[in-house]
Amino acid sequence: MNDYEFSRKTVEILREIRRRKPLVHHITNFVVMNSTANVTLAVGASPIMAHSHEEMEAMAAFADALNLNIGTLTPYWVDSMILAGKVAGKRGIPIILDPVGSGATPLRTEAAGRLLEEVPVTVIRGNASEVMSLFTGGKEIRIRGVDSLETVDAVRDGAYATAKEMGKVIAVTGEVDFITNGEKAIEVHNGDPMFGLVTGTGCAATTVVSCFCAVEPDPLAATACALGYYGLAGEEAARASKGPGSFQTALYDALYGLSEEAMMEKLRIKTIATNP
Amino acid sequence: MNDYEFSRKTVEILREIRRRKPLVHHITNFVVMNSTANVTLAVGASPIMAHSHEEMEAMAAFADALNLNIGTLTPYWVDSMILAGKVAGKRGIPIILDPVGSGATPLRTEAAGRLLEEVPVTVIRGNASEVMSLFTGGKEIRIRGVDSLETVDAVRDGAYATAKEMGKVIAVTGEVDFITNGEKAIEVHNGDPMFGLVTGTGCAATTVVSCFCAVEPDPLAATACALGYYGLAGEEAARASKGPGSFQTALYDALYGLSEEAMMEKLRIKTIATNP
Amino acid sequence: MNDYEFSRKTVEILREIRRRKPLVHHITNFVVMNSTANVTLAVGASPIMAHSHEEMEAMAAFADALNLNIGTLTPYWVDSMILAGKVAGKRGIPIILDPVGSGATPLRTEAAGRLLEEVPVTVIRGNASEVMSLFTGGKEIRIRGVDSLETVDAVRDGAYATAKEMGKVIAVTGEVDFITNGEKAIEVHNGDPMFGLVTGTGCAATTVVSCFCAVEPDPLAATACALGYYGLAGEEAARASKGPGSFQTALYDALYGLSEEAMMEKLRIKTIATNP
Repeated sequence: MNDYEFSRKTVEILREIRRRKPLVHHITNFVVMNSTANVTLAVGASPIMAHSHEEMEAMAAFADALNLNIGTLTPYWVDSMILAGKVAGKRGIPIILDPVGSGATPLRTEAAGRLLEEVPVTVIRGNASEVMSLFTGGKEIRIRGVDSLETVDAVRDGAYATAKEMGKVIAVTGEVDFITNGEKAIEVHNGDPMFGLVTGTGCAATTVVSCFCAVEPDPLAATACALGYYGLAGEEAARASKGPGSFQTALYDALYGLSEEAMMEKLRIKTIATNP
Repeated sequence: MNDYEFSRKTVEILREIRRRKPLVHHITNFVVMNSTANVTLAVGASPIMAHSHEEMEAMAAFADALNLNIGTLTPYWVDSMILAGKVAGKRGIPIILDPVGSGATPLRTEAAGRLLEEVPVTVIRGNASEVMSLFTGGKEIRIRGVDSLETVDAVRDGAYATAKEMGKVIAVTGEVDFITNGEKAIEVHNGDPMFGLVTGTGCAATTVVSCFCAVEPDPLAATACALGYYGLAGEEAARASKGPGSFQTALYDALYGLSEEAMMEKLRIKTIATNP
Repeated sequence: MNDYEFSRKTVEILREIRRRKPLVHHITNFVVMNSTANVTLAVGASPIMAHSHEEMEAMAAFADALNLNIGTLTPYWVDSMILAGKVAGKRGIPIILDPVGSGATPLRTEAAGRLLEEVPVTVIRGNASEVMSLFTGGKEIRIRGVDSLETVDAVRDGAYATAKEMGKVIAVTGEVDFITNGEKAIEVHNGDPMFGLVTGTGCAATTVVSCFCAVEPDPLAATACALGYYGLAGEEAARASKGPGSFQTALYDALYGLSEEAMMEKLRIKTIATNP
């Protein structure tokens, strides 16, 4: 697709989300439950947050997408993700994984690895360090807490090869986002440094990807369009704000109110050559 | 009571809350702990969030109302609610139940049922699907996640009969709110569609009911006045905002700052005939 | 230090935080995980929220400060705090304790006591009732939920004696904050009543103290400067807001954007005589 087609696609997916209001089941961390639920609603979808083993299968049975996030994880929560993920996999709904802090501690690296083994994940969205941990097994990753110390450029080749090997879409977000399915690759140039000053904005990016995948069958295009739209909403929010508090407020407003005209003009989503 | 008397009553209850600053013990879900604590403070009461079995009896022993909410529940949390609920019941403080997602999964439907059996709940506040699940046992409910697919009108008769049978106040919120104790019935016409775009606004409605019940001995009037005041604050917030982010900010401001003049003029709380 | 020196010191610590972006490991309550993460980012540090026993030692091994908060505690979480606290203690990083609700229930009073026995806490930040519970063993404390019913003045002597005995810094926050290490004492006169209308603002004060202690080796000065800066940000936020919703938004903006000029002019941090 060219730039125009990606913009067109983004507009169409958003229309479809608002028409169908898909249900996105989140098994996510305590820090972002409220903010990612609000992002889901601002995008036009419906969030359900649930993790009790007793209702994992029932919840996964009527969701339109499953969002897994390992921030503030304990073993109980990883088991919840596997229970829900198996049902989601059987039903063929998209499963989106945010490997928060993978590479920072063995618990997180192993949880991400176990989820990738036992659950048919469709898309992985992480920062450069987190994505790197997926193909190095967590060794020698420079990461501090959940902040990446690696650059997107440093993991492009690894992400590409891993996406190919695993048969998944991998999105590495940073100054420029890199999205690949191991065959094609896309860059998203929308975004704003203000995202780094609000907690959970990475998790929220994954939530937007989940909303887009819930209605769009091509997960590569869905992921790229989701990240472009989210980044552009951040650009608009940054213009309307004076600091991280007003930025977060304006971000929800922009996700809700971004005009189709603005998307057609300002989205910067580009297919890039994959054979250098 | 007529419209004028409900408005008067609302103003009086709010004054009393701000004079006494009642303590509202919440055992609630992870998504809304922060937002409902902020709503409690904006109304003028004091929130305490606590769920550890080891302190349930101690906390319930000095609270002025108990707010139970089954979103993101696990069996541990339901046990917390029962421990606190028994102490609250012995002390005669009002207990307000928000059956989040009852009808969506057996775990939630059963938790709501068990709480109603073991705890002397005073008021139940839910959407139409959730309330319907209380009298159908969760069968054949159309609900998606925690979003109602039933209308308030469809559950009026059932809510009325169930309130009568259980001896409780039941509030069904939606475009028009319906509140009944199985004898009298009240409609609240305040509100705004923006509430649907922010997570936890239903849970927050229940919190406002809890604050009002903490100081007003008549739970039917307290519930109706609480929902009128909350709906009107939403109307004011919608006027002052550009999307769901600024709406939530403006909602806390309005709950805090709504003038008595605005309440006397704009509350739309009406007793309705119960023998059709 | 005189007033000018405290203002100078505050400016320098903030510059250092923004230069080094220290990692502050929080083991904290569900209500404030999102808001204190945002405060950490607005100050210029990096938050990591983690509590699983399996990763406590790994997380504590690369943190620059450890923030412990017993709101919404269960025994599991207290054990997490002790696991992390032991590693933090061995590494010599500052450990800051917020004894939320200590004095309100035996569980909380005992948890605070156990943490103080088993973990080499550097600074304790609480309201007057919470601090009083630390030296009375929780007997006869007037506290309601997590709201202090004691005055800062009533606990000055006790806080001073306890700080001396324990060899720690104790900060009692209220209308005027009182900070002591049992040798020197400091008052902070910055602040605004609006803080009382937003949940978790006490917890956030502790977070700011943790950020300051992460880069400043003198915990007494770090704590005083942190509370002055936080209080002044609240003053600026109150001027820019219409109620508790817009206050919270403006508070993050002010923490992020407070100018060095404003700090040099408006901070009111004063050493006071300790031998009356």
